[in-house]
Amino acid sequence: MKKLWGGRFTASAEEWVDEFGASIPFDQELVLEDIKGSIAHATMLSKCGILTEKEAETIIGGLKELKEKALKKQLEYSTKYEDIHLNIEHMLTELIGPVGGKLHTGRSRNDQVATDMHLYLSDQVAEIAALLGEFQETLIEKAGDHIETVMPGYTHLQRAQPISFAHHLMAYFWMLERDKQRFTEVLKRINISPLGAGALAGTTFPIDREYSAELLGFEGIYQNSLDAVSDRDFILEFMSASSILMMHLSRFAEEIILWSSQEFRFVELDDTFATGSSIMPQKKNPDMAELIRGKTGRVYGGLMSLLTILKGLPLAYNKDMQEDKEGMFDTVKTVKGSLKIFSGMVKTMTVNTDNMKASVTKDFSNATELADYLAAKGMPFREAHEVVGKLVLDCIGKGCFLADLPFEEFKASSSLFEEDIYEALDPYNAVARRNSAGGTGFAEVEAQIQKARLLTGLEK
Amino acid sequence: MKKLWGGRFTASAEEWVDEFGASIPFDQELVLEDIKGSIAHATMLSKCGILTEKEAETIIGGLKELKEKALKKQLEYSTKYEDIHLNIEHMLTELIGPVGGKLHTGRSRNDQVATDMHLYLSDQVAEIAALLGEFQETLIEKAGDHIETVMPGYTHLQRAQPISFAHHLMAYFWMLERDKQRFTEVLKRINISPLGAGALAGTTFPIDREYSAELLGFEGIYQNSLDAVSDRDFILEFMSASSILMMHLSRFAEEIILWSSQEFRFVELDDTFATGSSIMPQKKNPDMAELIRGKTGRVYGGLMSLLTILKGLPLAYNKDMQEDKEGMFDTVKTVKGSLKIFSGMVKTMTVNTDNMKASVTKDFSNATELADYLAAKGMPFREAHEVVGKLVLDCIGKGCFLADLPFEEFKASSSLFEEDIYEALDPYNAVARRNSAGGTGFAEVEAQIQKARLLTGLEK
Amino acid sequence: MKKLWGGRFTASAEEWVDEFGASIPFDQELVLEDIKGSIAHATMLSKCGILTEKEAETIIGGLKELKEKALKKQLEYSTKYEDIHLNIEHMLTELIGPVGGKLHTGRSRNDQVATDMHLYLSDQVAEIAALLGEFQETLIEKAGDHIETVMPGYTHLQRAQPISFAHHLMAYFWMLERDKQRFTEVLKRINISPLGAGALAGTTFPIDREYSAELLGFEGIYQNSLDAVSDRDFILEFMSASSILMMHLSRFAEEIILWSSQEFRFVELDDTFATGSSIMPQKKNPDMAELIRGKTGRVYGGLMSLLTILKGLPLAYNKDMQEDKEGMFDTVKTVKGSLKIFSGMVKTMTVNTDNMKASVTKDFSNATELADYLAAKGMPFREAHEVVGKLVLDCIGKGCFLADLPFEEFKASSSLFEEDIYEALDPYNAVARRNSAGGTGFAEVEAQIQKARLLTGLEK
Amino acid sequence: MKKLWGGRFTASAEEWVDEFGASIPFDQELVLEDIKGSIAHATMLSKCGILTEKEAETIIGGLKELKEKALKKQLEYSTKYEDIHLNIEHMLTELIGPVGGKLHTGRSRNDQVATDMHLYLSDQVAEIAALLGEFQETLIEKAGDHIETVMPGYTHLQRAQPISFAHHLMAYFWMLERDKQRFTEVLKRINISPLGAGALAGTTFPIDREYSAELLGFEGIYQNSLDAVSDRDFILEFMSASSILMMHLSRFAEEIILWSSQEFRFVELDDTFATGSSIMPQKKNPDMAELIRGKTGRVYGGLMSLLTILKGLPLAYNKDMQEDKEGMFDTVKTVKGSLKIFSGMVKTMTVNTDNMKASVTKDFSNATELADYLAAKGMPFREAHEVVGKLVLDCIGKGCFLADLPFEEFKASSSLFEEDIYEALDPYNAVARRNSAGGTGFAEVEAQIQKARLLTGLEK
Repeated sequence: MKKLWGGRFTASAEEWVDEFGASIPFDQELVLEDIKGSIAHATMLSKCGILTEKEAETIIGGLKELKEKALKKQLEYSTKYEDIHLNIEHMLTELIGPVGGKLHTGRSRNDQVATDMHLYLSDQVAEIAALLGEFQETLIEKAGDHIETVMPGYTHLQRAQPISFAHHLMAYFWMLERDKQRFTEVLKRINISPLGAGALAGTTFPIDREYSAELLGFEGIYQNSLDAVSDRDFILEFMSASSILMMHLSRFAEEIILWSSQEFRFVELDDTFATGSSIMPQKKNPDMAELIRGKTGRVYGGLMSLLTILKGLPLAYNKDMQEDKEGMFDTVKTVKGSLKIFSGMVKTMTVNTDNMKASVTKDFSNATELADYLAAKGMPFREAHEVVGKLVLDCIGKGCFLADLPFEEFKASSSLFEEDIYEALDPYNAVARRNSAGGTGFAEVEAQIQKARLLTGLEK
Repeated sequence: MKKLWGGRFTASAEEWVDEFGASIPFDQELVLEDIKGSIAHATMLSKCGILTEKEAETIIGGLKELKEKALKKQLEYSTKYEDIHLNIEHMLTELIGPVGGKLHTGRSRNDQVATDMHLYLSDQVAEIAALLGEFQETLIEKAGDHIETVMPGYTHLQRAQPISFAHHLMAYFWMLERDKQRFTEVLKRINISPLGAGALAGTTFPIDREYSAELLGFEGIYQNSLDAVSDRDFILEFMSASSILMMHLSRFAEEIILWSSQEFRFVELDDTFATGSSIMPQKKNPDMAELIRGKTGRVYGGLMSLLTILKGLPLAYNKDMQEDKEGMFDTVKTVKGSLKIFSGMVKTMTVNTDNMKASVTKDFSNATELADYLAAKGMPFREAHEVVGKLVLDCIGKGCFLADLPFEEFKASSSLFEEDIYEALDPYNAVARRNSAGGTGFAEVEAQIQKARLLTGLEK
Repeated sequence: MKKLWGGRFTASAEEWVDEFGASIPFDQELVLEDIKGSIAHATMLSKCGILTEKEAETIIGGLKELKEKALKKQLEYSTKYEDIHLNIEHMLTELIGPVGGKLHTGRSRNDQVATDMHLYLSDQVAEIAALLGEFQETLIEKAGDHIETVMPGYTHLQRAQPISFAHHLMAYFWMLERDKQRFTEVLKRINISPLGAGALAGTTFPIDREYSAELLGFEGIYQNSLDAVSDRDFILEFMSASSILMMHLSRFAEEIILWSSQEFRFVELDDTFATGSSIMPQKKNPDMAELIRGKTGRVYGGLMSLLTILKGLPLAYNKDMQEDKEGMFDTVKTVKGSLKIFSGMVKTMTVNTDNMKASVTKDFSNATELADYLAAKGMPFREAHEVVGKLVLDCIGKGCFLADLPFEEFKASSSLFEEDIYEALDPYNAVARRNSAGGTGFAEVEAQIQKARLLTGLEK
Repeated sequence: MKKLWGGRFTASAEEWVDEFGASIPFDQELVLEDIKGSIAHATMLSKCGILTEKEAETIIGGLKELKEKALKKQLEYSTKYEDIHLNIEHMLTELIGPVGGKLHTGRSRNDQVATDMHLYLSDQVAEIAALLGEFQETLIEKAGDHIETVMPGYTHLQRAQPISFAHHLMAYFWMLERDKQRFTEVLKRINISPLGAGALAGTTFPIDREYSAELLGFEGIYQNSLDAVSDRDFILEFMSASSILMMHLSRFAEEIILWSSQEFRFVELDDTFATGSSIMPQKKNPDMAELIRGKTGRVYGGLMSLLTILKGLPLAYNKDMQEDKEGMFDTVKTVKGSLKIFSGMVKTMTVNTDNMKASVTKDFSNATELADYLAAKGMPFREAHEVVGKLVLDCIGKGCFLADLPFEEFKASSSLFEEDIYEALDPYNAVARRNSAGGTGFAEVEAQIQKARLLTGLEK
């Protein structure tokens, strides 16, 4: 075959090199964006008098026909035409004749591919933001059911202080809220049009870039043609935001996995989100949580790939940049799938409130209450801390817990202790009293959920 | 020695373990932020009646004394006290007696260290944004001097089309503009106060988190105490934004290195920013550009470190998170240094306009002009492309350039060619005519610079 | 449908969760390894009396039939059966009846999948080592043609000293040699059998792991069943070795790209390995070199993914580890393709010896000769260095090169100079004389090539 | 000041650029290696007649004096002299006069710095291998004490099958064994001398590279001077091996953290390796395990940095490569510290054998025993699996475990069950019977430990 760009070339390219270099196996994912961009370009060319109305009509008609076929998965791509752009152009010319060759006036593949990717990512990021919102609603709902469910709060995976399970769930709500903010900010830089930047320098044709940008729903245009075709910041930003999101999910996944273990038994996953073992019939594995935790690595890797690819590249377009696509597609797919699965998993999981409660009764996570008790009565916190440390050590020696100590032992260690100390040691009370702003106190958690409902529009 | 948290412990910790675990060798960088946070905390405790006015006065007085010493580098830290927080608290108690122990009421090291880092990064990111602005001004100025300096524009490191050197410089202006936007957006999430979140659950003391946040210049507070102490998104975002910025600098550095080579000779660096060789006296190496290109790896690595550290960590604080600091400090230092150096390097470099000009005269980068010429006369672009391809091949065979071909050869390859074809082939004209929005045409570049001046406030 | 592991489950898993969790879309690449492993397992079970000879015969017959179909791409996989193992087992049972269910005696999917991956990588790494060898031969051959081709050697991309082009090419030979060593070492840890480790703990059946290992061509067995199913070091090592290899290729690619530029014009790529531009007909882009440079990022990303995935995973198998496959497949494909392409690109490129020669004639890369000249006559090197530095500066002021200076100027700067100084300044001589071991002197380069020929077995 | 390489330069470099570019703040770590390399170089120069014996004596005497000072930390470095090499050379010349300038004959900083790093890493890697060996001995010893300690084995963090605690510990032994192999292999490529490669091209002086290599304890020399100064593979390999090692430690750390939790309570760390909380006196945090898990990110980041730095660098030396040092130093320090701490932590931890035992008694991890029981009696494994799955479900419904079921229920689900089924269900028996090679059976674990003792030389 003869290549579209082959006029200057004497040798025919060997097929295996073609295959190595072709992007059509993966960039066909951009077919609808490519056609959409071309329709806008043709419309603009016609408005500016660069195409006659008739030419534009023919071209746009052809493109729409191809779009229909694309939607029906009827297009057949070939590595002979390297990429989605040349494939579509070739099909168009087959369909409507040489006038198809006029479509490429005033643009180049460099700005065309950038346009396709901006369009693609704009849609996908909007979808991801919506999925984040749905997951947040799940969290709000689940938290609403568990405001007074008391569980151990952990630091260093050691029981630290009793907290409300709703409070724990809501911590993830706020992480997702920041994720949503970030994706929304990235959108500002996605929704900028490179179309008409040409190969690198702009064009001599009297095109109207603002107009084609508007037709495509962009909010502005790149102000510098070299930058327009060289820039992949918007993908990097998307991948950074995705990496942080996946990091959040990996933390939540870790907790789901811990909570599902026989040792914790805080939650039971719905069978839909768990699997069995081929050899151990009793197992109920939190596979989806593990898989999402694992997929974090995939998204991190994609970010690192693109950062590496772009490092040290001179302006403007270089073929290295073809490698920007697969990682982007993969990240989109991973993030969307992970959000959907995670939201369903949380929505359907059963919370073992009894086990949670039992866990805070038989441990030392109420020790801070004692220290606070003493500090509230004027003992410097550091001193109080030491007094309590000794009481804990005392209990461990005796094999009991703090609430099991007779009052005289408290009194002996500090005269500030009064009989109300036993009330302070009750985990439920310990949670209830932590009503500093953002604290785990029930009233405060309720207020927090209310803020979240307003923020997500669940309540007005 | 006896550790502050040692009440419960029977064995004395061996020193080498202490050293491995201590953060004071690096977190002493946060000393001023730590003191600032403590002063605000004490002020708030007093306002809320948790400390008496007199206690607060004593504490704040002591803290201010420590601040003075810190500014004079007179504080002596010890790994015995693990981290900056315990070191300062210890010094305070030495200074003012046991009342110093009351400062830690209603907070914990978990929210304290988070507060320090928010404060630190808030200042640093503001400085970085300012340095970005200065670099942008350098670019605007340099570009202003070179609007009509014509040079080859490259794709694939092959000469593609002639462009204005100012246009090329301005491409970096817009990258830096996006960088500035990103850092500014990160600031929104940096300027949130975790102070008062306690170890993880809030506190029973009637503190006023909004008040201490206001005293510290934060714009809001974390709404969830678990999130407040577990969150390191703001550092990750900072490191992502830094990675993208360094990627931009690495591209510019690559170009400076190319342009400084004997093969390109487009610029000559000022001696300040170049170095010689210990063995080859004639060398003038673009060391600073190379070093900054290399430092890109360092910043990428820092991002990857922190992403790895946070992956799969259960809530709330885990000791792993102590590893968040050194990478952050290093990135701050690298980014600030790189921006300063790069700006100085660009400001002082000499542009060899003659070599640039010579380069566009003797090559084929004017070939697109021919294709555009034919397309403008109605030939479908793809056809035009092929006609020109053959003319180029023809020239190569003859060892000449397009402008050297006699008119009849043009005419023979397409009847659309007229005598004005030679004018079109002139590189200066080729640049001048590319006045599509964001294009390299001189008028358009001038307009672009004007927009940049308005954006950066150089002009009102 | 009912899942194979579904006995304990009451709810039927929703399909989209299944799809998210299924590995069959990608692990079908392991079909031949999976069947091979099963045949060996069945053979071993029969030898140990766990299967009757007849059962084994039936099972192995069925497996061979499936293998034939697999080779003809006639197998149809279903996400219902999650992964390649259950798909094959299901097909087998369909084919030969319930006896197929006996195949899974004494093993589990955990050791089965590990076995498949060891088998897969063993073959692939051997192929990669062979491709490395072929590339090395190309380099030896090309270098053999260019021993006396003199070109500038660079440091900091500044011309430093003239060198032999063969010497430059051979630098890559030794990098590839280290790559080959590394892959060979990885093979030692790939060729270890996990088969029979069971889910994690071994089995109560009297199996013979050494025997099945031998049947599969492994050189030993894992000594610990937990380790056998948890270990992915061998993939990480493969990806590390691949990352270093791609780093080498990226450096070579960078040089090919530089050398192909109009500024250097040291080589011309064969049309097969270059492409044109859709808009600039004169361009001949070193696309393959750029693409391989870009693919470096992909391989780095794959390494970072797997490192992240494995970080902090408790023993033994976790579902996260399912994410180990796609990156491995992708790296194998990328590395093999890149080696093939690169070797072909180097073999067919034209070397512009005249341009190389011209480059060393008109510059200062012979300055070291002067310094060495003086040092050889007893002047301390540092002093010599300074003398030459001044001469170079002098030349630059006058717009000439060192060989253009009249003898009296040399004499004036140091009385050690004699008339033979002009001979020393000749680039050809400068190269010829550098015959320290591993140096660029022609004789030494010839010896180096000879060593390489012996090492690769081209010569005995 | 005047720079050593400044002969050609007219402007004096501003100080802040100097500081940004200087490596002396960190490469002073190489001072002993630098002096060692110089002594060998001078010895060789004298042997080859390039220095007179007297010159060599003076130089070597001076170097030894500097070495003594270095050991006493009495050397004062200055950023004026950029790096360790120029600092030492300057000090030498101050000490012994201009003859010091003769030391640099026949070498350059490019081969000198490479030599220093090879020497440094050679020692460090040997130390790391020794630390690995010590950790292995700790594991062997601890395992020896716990061969019959039965604990739950996990997959997906679900209890899967009972195993021997010794077996679990030994899994890490084999990981460390592979680590040791890898470091040993890297040593082969570290122990190669670049000294005498010069700036990039070798030298005209009649040096003897084999001789200086031998003096320094290297096992060979680089065969290509360009490769010698451009190669950083040996550092990358070291960092890859370190990353894999840290990954292993992160997995072990995760388990230590889990086992130390109140939920698992399998081990109790010695107080030396745990810390308390500033606010929660009852806490005993597994800080060291967490910190090492976190430091994994640091080492991964270092690897990613260096991979990024080297990507796309043309030959030979580029200033980017100065960035290779800090990451290497940091990784050495991190790996050595982590190994020491981890070994001590494991050696001193208390194993709660009772809790481990209790965990396997009250769960379903003996379910596989049933399936194996049926399979051993001829039921296809898949069928057996299903039978057992139903029995487990049955138990869950009744709130009991398998051993609690009356015999008739077993019989009802399959006639293959006999009375000896209860014996099979006992966890101790379940472990004891898994004596397939590498399995968890006590006899097999004992044999495994014996192999390990032979391998590490603990036994002959």
